[in-house]
Amino acid sequence: MTTNFQDFLSQRTYSMRRNQIREILKVVSQPGMISLAGGIPAPETFPLEELYRLNETVLDRYGAATLQYDMTEGFTPFREALVGYLKAKEITVSADKILVFNGSQSVLDTLGKVLITPGDTVALESPSYLGAISAFSAYEPNYVSIATDDAGILPDALEETLDRQKIKFIYLVTTFQNPTGRTLSASRRRHVAEIVQRHGALVIEDDPYSDLRYRGETVPPFYTFAPENTVYASTVSKVFAPGLRLGFCVAPAVIHEWLYTAKQGADLHSNTYAQALATEYICSGTIYEQVPKIIELYGPRLEAMLAAMDQYMPADYRWTQPDGGMFVWVEGPKGVDAEQIYWQAVERKVAFVPGKYFYINPEEGLATMRLNFTRSDEEAIRKAIATLGAVIRDFKPV
Amino acid sequence: MTTNFQDFLSQRTYSMRRNQIREILKVVSQPGMISLAGGIPAPETFPLEELYRLNETVLDRYGAATLQYDMTEGFTPFREALVGYLKAKEITVSADKILVFNGSQSVLDTLGKVLITPGDTVALESPSYLGAISAFSAYEPNYVSIATDDAGILPDALEETLDRQKIKFIYLVTTFQNPTGRTLSASRRRHVAEIVQRHGALVIEDDPYSDLRYRGETVPPFYTFAPENTVYASTVSKVFAPGLRLGFCVAPAVIHEWLYTAKQGADLHSNTYAQALATEYICSGTIYEQVPKIIELYGPRLEAMLAAMDQYMPADYRWTQPDGGMFVWVEGPKGVDAEQIYWQAVERKVAFVPGKYFYINPEEGLATMRLNFTRSDEEAIRKAIATLGAVIRDFKPV
Repeated sequence: MTTNFQDFLSQRTYSMRRNQIREILKVVSQPGMISLAGGIPAPETFPLEELYRLNETVLDRYGAATLQYDMTEGFTPFREALVGYLKAKEITVSADKILVFNGSQSVLDTLGKVLITPGDTVALESPSYLGAISAFSAYEPNYVSIATDDAGILPDALEETLDRQKIKFIYLVTTFQNPTGRTLSASRRRHVAEIVQRHGALVIEDDPYSDLRYRGETVPPFYTFAPENTVYASTVSKVFAPGLRLGFCVAPAVIHEWLYTAKQGADLHSNTYAQALATEYICSGTIYEQVPKIIELYGPRLEAMLAAMDQYMPADYRWTQPDGGMFVWVEGPKGVDAEQIYWQAVERKVAFVPGKYFYINPEEGLATMRLNFTRSDEEAIRKAIATLGAVIRDFKPV
Repeated sequence: MTTNFQDFLSQRTYSMRRNQIREILKVVSQPGMISLAGGIPAPETFPLEELYRLNETVLDRYGAATLQYDMTEGFTPFREALVGYLKAKEITVSADKILVFNGSQSVLDTLGKVLITPGDTVALESPSYLGAISAFSAYEPNYVSIATDDAGILPDALEETLDRQKIKFIYLVTTFQNPTGRTLSASRRRHVAEIVQRHGALVIEDDPYSDLRYRGETVPPFYTFAPENTVYASTVSKVFAPGLRLGFCVAPAVIHEWLYTAKQGADLHSNTYAQALATEYICSGTIYEQVPKIIELYGPRLEAMLAAMDQYMPADYRWTQPDGGMFVWVEGPKGVDAEQIYWQAVERKVAFVPGKYFYINPEEGLATMRLNFTRSDEEAIRKAIATLGAVIRDFKPV
């Protein structure tokens, strides 16, 4: 009897979201395409030469331990190295409060597993990070969107939501948000923290980008304003190498304990060798040489994009003015369908991500676009924005 | 308002099983202890010297790609290398049929996610691998145990179970099982395959140990007898390095497709650098030099354990005669409580795992013990078994 196993799938599988943008982005690898679509680091930011040396140090120093099964919580020297890394962000925790995961994506997945009972409500910024929605959706939550402006989530909108219904957690990318590039301002962090504390609510702060600041003042993590009500999640993907899949989090005790148990059942522990590499990357100080180089590469690309947009984008379009990260967010006038613009731009060899995919209700984001500025050089960015401006001006609905 | 977040936990969190043996094994690291408790490779089996060279080859050959985000399915050269590795096991598949995960533990977790709706029934060998139970339990299944003998699962017992109730899948460690060391015989594989095919049922074959054969004839994977009804899962943990956390699977098309989607949401992809290392480990042929060395190390340890058991274990105890793997399984006479023996053995500096933890119903396994023979040398094994025999003879119930 041949079985196709369709009816063997779990109920939760039907709630999983496929990465819908994958399909439309297939064209991005066509020759000659300038892609503003991705969200991945420029490969020239990787410390490739240093890796030869880091590998030797790691094998000399830790030997067979780098290849062996290790603790679910994470490789102890890595957690100890993260103590100093986090302290520089004003997060003061001991190593035993840090849990290591396979990228921050896996922090989000495991949080979903531990926290979401099907039907629970999760609050998201509108728009929000698509990968978080993919991670949480496997656990069958409902979503509620919280309105945002250029300084991030609106405190009054949050408070109204918390008053109205039970919210399992509020998921925020607080600094240089994906997809908008916006940063929750310091004063608003304080206000949101006060609301969250008053309601006994839980915030998941996803902070992959804060080291990539090209201008403006550093803002301390939201965690520092409400440590007892926040899970802080981050990664070395943007400051070292995403291919190593190393993320980590700091969480309230009960949640920490169950994240640990869930991770033990899910994958035993994260790659020991990669954790040892990241340990040496931090402890040798290589990170403190590398991050300024990354900033030096990306900063001018952001400036080039913003300058080109001033020059080429139609007057009825507006866009964010990020101080860091990887993205600029564009909003066209009402009635624009950015996916139609996408297909016409692709014909002229420029790709981006239509912004509607970052909304729980895509209708709200039809006129939006996410533009990445880290994978192309200034010249390519200027050319791409000039083309995009022309496509928009010449746009004919199909 | 301080929140302890206990009531924020999901319903599924309450079904997660903590690794219960962790607590009783805390004493294992005491000085002077001979541990037969673990299930981890001897560190001297790791190709530490070769790693220096493999690292250079990987960086020279693949460069920045080893540090970059990569495909959810796995690093293409690694999947291509696995094609040949699997072909040697008579599993003939193309690279696009292979999915890479963070260890085979993560294959099991993701299968649970994709397949188990709360309340579904999963069939397990009795006893079964504890880690699989931990992985599946997060998805809230019920379990049914299938009786086994020295040649593995009993076909009649399986058929009766499949006739009686809807079974989501049957989980089998087919070769050198953890915890018993038993191998499902070739003729029984054929018989079980016939039953499974006739019922349109699904088997998850977990095969981490089959390369570690010290004697006897190779048995082809269960997958080869029923490829359309089997998910084949394996890992490089026992033949290369568990710290790299690399597992993989081959699954029927619908399941493959949703494993992919689930993995994308859970962690994007597995460690690129580790996959590149494993690629070179296989493609350079290092694996074919290393595995015979591992066998040469472990084989005499198994022989030493079996010989010592003949000499020192009481006549009313019986134990398995594995042809490979890492474990020997002991059954004492009715009325014995192996956990009481454990504590008295630990006082005399010998540790093992009481077998009841590998049963869905621990009462069935009170008199059983799992003994690992790969982490201690022959002399230590003989000493440990002599002590264990003496403890059993001197045993006074507490």
